[in-house]
Amino acid sequence: MYFAPNAKVAALQEKLQAFMDRHIYPNEARYAAEVESGDRWKPSVVMEELKAKAREQGLWNLFLAHSKNGPGLTNLEYAPLCEIMGRSPIAPEAFNCAAPDTGNMETIDQYGTEEQKAQWLKPLLEGRIRSCFAMTEPAVASSDATNIESSIVRDGDDYVINGRKWWTTGAPDPRCKIAIFMGKTDPRHPDRYRQQSMVLVPMETPGVKVVRPLTVFGYDDAPNGHAEVLFDNVRVPRSNILLGEGRGFEIAQGRLGPGRIHHCMRSIGMAERALEDMCRRAKSRVAFGKPLSEQGVTLERIAEARIAIEQARLLVFKAAYMMDTVGNKVARAEIAMIKVAVPNMLTRVVDMSMQLHGAAGMSDDFGLAKVYAGARSLRFADGPDEVHRAQIARLELKKYN
Amino acid sequence: MYFAPNAKVAALQEKLQAFMDRHIYPNEARYAAEVESGDRWKPSVVMEELKAKAREQGLWNLFLAHSKNGPGLTNLEYAPLCEIMGRSPIAPEAFNCAAPDTGNMETIDQYGTEEQKAQWLKPLLEGRIRSCFAMTEPAVASSDATNIESSIVRDGDDYVINGRKWWTTGAPDPRCKIAIFMGKTDPRHPDRYRQQSMVLVPMETPGVKVVRPLTVFGYDDAPNGHAEVLFDNVRVPRSNILLGEGRGFEIAQGRLGPGRIHHCMRSIGMAERALEDMCRRAKSRVAFGKPLSEQGVTLERIAEARIAIEQARLLVFKAAYMMDTVGNKVARAEIAMIKVAVPNMLTRVVDMSMQLHGAAGMSDDFGLAKVYAGARSLRFADGPDEVHRAQIARLELKKYN
Amino acid sequence: MYFAPNAKVAALQEKLQAFMDRHIYPNEARYAAEVESGDRWKPSVVMEELKAKAREQGLWNLFLAHSKNGPGLTNLEYAPLCEIMGRSPIAPEAFNCAAPDTGNMETIDQYGTEEQKAQWLKPLLEGRIRSCFAMTEPAVASSDATNIESSIVRDGDDYVINGRKWWTTGAPDPRCKIAIFMGKTDPRHPDRYRQQSMVLVPMETPGVKVVRPLTVFGYDDAPNGHAEVLFDNVRVPRSNILLGEGRGFEIAQGRLGPGRIHHCMRSIGMAERALEDMCRRAKSRVAFGKPLSEQGVTLERIAEARIAIEQARLLVFKAAYMMDTVGNKVARAEIAMIKVAVPNMLTRVVDMSMQLHGAAGMSDDFGLAKVYAGARSLRFADGPDEVHRAQIARLELKKYN
Amino acid sequence: MYFAPNAKVAALQEKLQAFMDRHIYPNEARYAAEVESGDRWKPSVVMEELKAKAREQGLWNLFLAHSKNGPGLTNLEYAPLCEIMGRSPIAPEAFNCAAPDTGNMETIDQYGTEEQKAQWLKPLLEGRIRSCFAMTEPAVASSDATNIESSIVRDGDDYVINGRKWWTTGAPDPRCKIAIFMGKTDPRHPDRYRQQSMVLVPMETPGVKVVRPLTVFGYDDAPNGHAEVLFDNVRVPRSNILLGEGRGFEIAQGRLGPGRIHHCMRSIGMAERALEDMCRRAKSRVAFGKPLSEQGVTLERIAEARIAIEQARLLVFKAAYMMDTVGNKVARAEIAMIKVAVPNMLTRVVDMSMQLHGAAGMSDDFGLAKVYAGARSLRFADGPDEVHRAQIARLELKKYN
Repeated sequence: MYFAPNAKVAALQEKLQAFMDRHIYPNEARYAAEVESGDRWKPSVVMEELKAKAREQGLWNLFLAHSKNGPGLTNLEYAPLCEIMGRSPIAPEAFNCAAPDTGNMETIDQYGTEEQKAQWLKPLLEGRIRSCFAMTEPAVASSDATNIESSIVRDGDDYVINGRKWWTTGAPDPRCKIAIFMGKTDPRHPDRYRQQSMVLVPMETPGVKVVRPLTVFGYDDAPNGHAEVLFDNVRVPRSNILLGEGRGFEIAQGRLGPGRIHHCMRSIGMAERALEDMCRRAKSRVAFGKPLSEQGVTLERIAEARIAIEQARLLVFKAAYMMDTVGNKVARAEIAMIKVAVPNMLTRVVDMSMQLHGAAGMSDDFGLAKVYAGARSLRFADGPDEVHRAQIARLELKKYN
Repeated sequence: MYFAPNAKVAALQEKLQAFMDRHIYPNEARYAAEVESGDRWKPSVVMEELKAKAREQGLWNLFLAHSKNGPGLTNLEYAPLCEIMGRSPIAPEAFNCAAPDTGNMETIDQYGTEEQKAQWLKPLLEGRIRSCFAMTEPAVASSDATNIESSIVRDGDDYVINGRKWWTTGAPDPRCKIAIFMGKTDPRHPDRYRQQSMVLVPMETPGVKVVRPLTVFGYDDAPNGHAEVLFDNVRVPRSNILLGEGRGFEIAQGRLGPGRIHHCMRSIGMAERALEDMCRRAKSRVAFGKPLSEQGVTLERIAEARIAIEQARLLVFKAAYMMDTVGNKVARAEIAMIKVAVPNMLTRVVDMSMQLHGAAGMSDDFGLAKVYAGARSLRFADGPDEVHRAQIARLELKKYN
Repeated sequence: MYFAPNAKVAALQEKLQAFMDRHIYPNEARYAAEVESGDRWKPSVVMEELKAKAREQGLWNLFLAHSKNGPGLTNLEYAPLCEIMGRSPIAPEAFNCAAPDTGNMETIDQYGTEEQKAQWLKPLLEGRIRSCFAMTEPAVASSDATNIESSIVRDGDDYVINGRKWWTTGAPDPRCKIAIFMGKTDPRHPDRYRQQSMVLVPMETPGVKVVRPLTVFGYDDAPNGHAEVLFDNVRVPRSNILLGEGRGFEIAQGRLGPGRIHHCMRSIGMAERALEDMCRRAKSRVAFGKPLSEQGVTLERIAEARIAIEQARLLVFKAAYMMDTVGNKVARAEIAMIKVAVPNMLTRVVDMSMQLHGAAGMSDDFGLAKVYAGARSLRFADGPDEVHRAQIARLELKKYN
Repeated sequence: MYFAPNAKVAALQEKLQAFMDRHIYPNEARYAAEVESGDRWKPSVVMEELKAKAREQGLWNLFLAHSKNGPGLTNLEYAPLCEIMGRSPIAPEAFNCAAPDTGNMETIDQYGTEEQKAQWLKPLLEGRIRSCFAMTEPAVASSDATNIESSIVRDGDDYVINGRKWWTTGAPDPRCKIAIFMGKTDPRHPDRYRQQSMVLVPMETPGVKVVRPLTVFGYDDAPNGHAEVLFDNVRVPRSNILLGEGRGFEIAQGRLGPGRIHHCMRSIGMAERALEDMCRRAKSRVAFGKPLSEQGVTLERIAEARIAIEQARLLVFKAAYMMDTVGNKVARAEIAMIKVAVPNMLTRVVDMSMQLHGAAGMSDDFGLAKVYAGARSLRFADGPDEVHRAQIARLELKKYN
């Protein structure tokens, strides 16, 4: 299992691909039509059908590596499977492998108490509810996590929470029942990485207000979406804290590795599909007397896309392998590398595919522009490229101390 | 007037900038709110107010170079003025200098009969109606204009028109009253550039159907928009033809030069504003203990943006100068060069500005993502980069025959 | 053995690294001084010393995969070893793993008769002689191998050879005793890929004339070099043919895979060393009050280099793995990909390292400019990027037939 | 005179082009042969012939803008003329317009005493001697000019000079008689920009030692070259100081503007010639059944080159115009922009031209590789891109204070 999948993975690949062909691709248009007609924020019937089918076939929660609650795949084994799911915007949720739930489930699985798991992890693993992660704030540069200003103040047996968050993905979805909230319990702690804590906040708690959905290049990504969320004197019991006060940064570090790599795995699948679209389009359109697929410039673009995808995929595999063998902390250079390399590769490949499609490439008749928008946002998510590059370089320079 | 504007232009620059400061920028949010509330396709009250004010001040139809109907500016004189208008998405229409009306007005001004001018050019010049240009077709690669399949068939004193067009900008706007339609009157003409004709088609003619608005990334660009338009046995009098049968390609050639350069002039303004946004943001956000504006990577991006904008602007000026002095035909290499260079510069500059804004850059709180979407579409509009590059190179190679 | 080396390879890595540290790096300056002083084309005494030591330690002919004459390493096993050798310009020859000998030895090993092997392969394997490969011609575009014009004409028991070749690497070296010559035995064969043959031509045969050494960016690469070679009525026995008449193209195809991948493996090592140089320099130089290594732009460059190297290395490993498991023919897309990706990565990484070194980076005080020159030439060697990209794209498009 | 030259310039262009065609291009090979045969550092007979002819025709010292000693051209008028000279490596010296003499002549013309002018400017203007500029030091990062460590110490009526310089262009040329030396007269001055002074040092003064010629890539650029020069207790009279103690930085600032723009003007000419070479080659070589000039990828490269050259030239013109109208200080952003933009454009264009030439492009049969080497060195000369970009950005950010 490295350049070639092992038997277990090969079997799952085949099963997943069959499911994609039979159930996912044919339902993409139905799903889109459902969202467009009527209330954009109503949970999708098509999606619930797909989830039931996927769960029935055991194609469920495959992401949950290293946990007794999951199928026991390593990250490296999961990578080529997650890639397949990434090919369709509706696939990850259908297999209960969608962000931000995967990261939230892993966080609760790893750091939660038994009570927290019973109350929130169980329904998440069963796909009965969804979740969100409230971290980024509009008022400060979130590229530096120590900038966070939201407050979590102890008051008797409760915490009182105040803060304005945004880009809280999934918050507008009525099925979203629980938020992991990051704020400061001890803003004066001398160690700036011990000031933060994470607390579970049920979305129905008084004072939690989804202010507005945000758009990404004009897309609201309904029915899940991204929201600005106001936490106004929100009161939760102290037992809702994750791991303990002052450990928010530590959880963030543990959480981000898997979250990032899943995005990257899916991105490889998106890039493959964009390249496939590019090839099919090139063969079907004629300009100046020849199919586009016989014109030199088209060939150059296709080759550049293929080379870029191959390299990015292998780097994702290597990062997964390192997470499995030496752990997220030692693998942090590799994780940072894919965090930079893969979204840049994906935007480039999708951009080439859009260009070959002409104006059609920017419309919603092809999914390319929407994939571009999502890929572009990955260049900020969890910190911009610039921050990750600086970290990679500092690790590199340390070799010469 | 080259690197420094002459007195006439300097005066207009000052007047325009004052108008932008006093009327345009302060009304951007009002305009956006108007579109968002209620019927997206209803004409904007804010815009009609702005148009009245601009017209009152003589800031009206400045684009119309070389015509007795305009203010008599050359292209080179118009360039720095158009750039100012380009800074705001709502400015060009306020000054009656918005695409596709400018191109349509120039086309009718240059090629129309007196009757056609009285009926359509006059209300367009007065800003009472709007217009669209129906050329691109979904079924064929529009990068090669000879691919067009729509038909214009003589029938007694009428033409009967059939075809499916898309990316017809402005068609969804209820104020859009007239389309310039390109189709084939003589699909078997041995000269493939004599098969096409252009005909004026009132939008209210039976058989003209705006099928659906299209989106660019996720933007519908209401209340103007871009539409798929079906022409189903549409009947217009033969007097509606422009210039004569078989001359559609010739008109397209004449029309495209100015159309392209106006887009490029405006793009310089958009890029300037994106860079201004980047600088302001960099000064106001702190990460890792320093304002972004003091971090080396930010400086590099700002410098790259400034260098790219300066070069692109000068190339636009040169193309304008050549159109003024040697004409659109001799200037076609320069026009093709800006057609390639400017949208690529603009997407790059806006992308850097978005990246510096973090997630905010992709939302509608800043206009950057929408400018990106528009700029990206300019890399296809009037033919993709690839076609224009091939033309530039062929002209270059001819020097060595 | 994929992301982590197996025990055999790990042991060889350690041994090689120790040899590099003890013998290779400390002798680089001695070797250079030897070439600079006196006759540039005289074989190097330093090199012969190094060869003796390497052979003694069994670090010899490691490249020879899949042959009873070699150590039995697979391509994938050889890759990380070859990378280490690539770090120094004098290492490959010291280990008898230098181009073009490796490719020539593989060719004779695979396609030669027992007599040919006894006469030429044996001394090559023992490092007693060197060899060259005479293919490229000045008069025609060698990107298209069918353009070759040299003639090989049967005359009794001999072949008479005529042609002008250039970029024949190694030909100026007095130790170079044998050329593999590609020419046309049957220029009228209807199958254009059956016109060519390869013949062994001893360099001392009358009519073989090394016309002049060529330079690469001013470097003559003495004492090996690249030559223009005239073959003027050169007569060799018919038994000197390789494999048979009309099979030159077939041999070229078989030969090129390994040749290309060895260049790529070495290039990874060169890139690693250039990055190491960049890091060390960045830590040692101060500008504007801070070491370069603490400036944001430097960090960005280092990160970009690290990401690019990692991805390229993994693609080389994958290509090696495929050559081992499915053969050179099935792996031809992957071989073409590394042929494009690796030299481009290397020139980019070296260019960044040079820039950080300032003017010093272009001098011979650091080896960077020379590595750049060599890397740049790899973008043409065995066909330019453009030809390989077209091949990659055609293989990609075939998936959709 | 902006997009079109005025009559004076047009006449000079014609005259210069005729001289290039008649005398320069036909003598390039003769000049190269002269250098290659025998002593590389002997002054060229061919060059002296060309100089005599050029002077006779009044094509002499055209660079000297704003000086009674020159022909009275503005920078903007000189730009298109300098571009023509840039097309051949041997042209600038033939017209007495070569670096570093032009910068040195301007410096003495502007800041020298009448005695200094009589002694050094006069023979330089007459082309009887050459000069060098000793600034960069091997021991420190020269990107920060305050790093300079050489010392200039007053001793009675003399200065005693000590320091090690390198990249002192022209120093190996036996005709080089005078150096402008930059060092510190007052290393403890609180204003770090008042510590430096410039002193005229005759090359024949005891203690001046040309240690070795340096190479750029593999080129020694004989018979002019670049040297490491040791100044070991060199004693010159105090009257040799330029302008006064502590004013070295001020002179450097004044000098660098013209020096940089001349390099950029010449670079436009080099790029034009590289593009011309590319076009001619593309038309003359056939691969895969078609001339390269009919292949899409070639067309893309040619168009990219043309677009890049046009933009860079216009930016050079604008910088020249600003130097003429508002002075070097106000124009410093524009000068920094061309300093970054033009060498990057030139390396890119030459790289594309080399690639199209295949291996031939790297040899000395075409001048491309040598032009590349020189262009690449311009990305460090007078400070690396990174320093200039930071300056451009800081000037940009100041607009928002």
